[in-house]
Amino acid sequence: MTATLKVSEILEAALYVTDLAAAEEFYTKILGLSLYSRFAERHVFLRCGDQMVLLFNAEATVHSGDGPLDAPEHGMKGAGHIAFAVRDHEIDQWKEHLTTQGVSIEKEICWEKGRSLYFRDPSGNSVEITSPAIWRIEENMFFSRR
Amino acid sequence: MTATLKVSEILEAALYVTDLAAAEEFYTKILGLSLYSRFAERHVFLRCGDQMVLLFNAEATVHSGDGPLDAPEHGMKGAGHIAFAVRDHEIDQWKEHLTTQGVSIEKEICWEKGRSLYFRDPSGNSVEITSPAIWRIEENMFFSRR
Repeated sequence: MTATLKVSEILEAALYVTDLAAAEEFYTKILGLSLYSRFAERHVFLRCGDQMVLLFNAEATVHSGDGPLDAPEHGMKGAGHIAFAVRDHEIDQWKEHLTTQGVSIEKEICWEKGRSLYFRDPSGNSVEITSPAIWRIEENMFFSRR
Repeated sequence: MTATLKVSEILEAALYVTDLAAAEEFYTKILGLSLYSRFAERHVFLRCGDQMVLLFNAEATVHSGDGPLDAPEHGMKGAGHIAFAVRDHEIDQWKEHLTTQGVSIEKEICWEKGRSLYFRDPSGNSVEITSPAIWRIEENMFFSRR
């Protein structure tokens, strides 16, 4: 029975940031995520389609019972990573958009299929915009379900 | 033109682990993700539905040009977080499955809608299995697209 149990949907991806306000501005104004909620110096929760990007201040979340929620403690230091999927034909628009917004493209990689733009959020996390094709996920199939 | 650009799909969520082999076993055998690729002591890439969970050894990825890929450097230390969506009625099956597999449920939280199981991966990352309802995302809508 339980042998067939498996997860197949990421619901929340977490990033740790050193400046929540700057991160909120970056992810909402530049990447277009929607603010879901924020709590003091602990977190900013963002909606990304029907998934969540959770931005945490690790200095708060490493302590349990630190917020309105009583979730187990966690917290990381350093530069994390997240990637967002867009259609391959939108990559050039994103490049222009990011540049116009003052976000430097740190690197652009052309894979066997698809390509990736890499840039940094204000806390130094490595953010990528790319096509699902880089993982051999057919783009039309990926987006037709959304 | 670019004002309407926004991302709405998480494609990759990253976690940092101290033991890649143990993490691979945990995420594939217990959570049911599929191995996509692995590279020496640098990473294990897993497919989760049509998204990716990337497990990295931060000691390798903090250096650029460290692997077969030449992606910008990143890497974190500490305990990260990820959540996977399941249907609310499956939560009890998951609880039984995890316990049977020797994974301790660290905490169970009942939200206004839905509930969450929290447990640790072998590196101490805080993993959550929950319903999209906790974020006011209607479960049938969420899963009907998948």
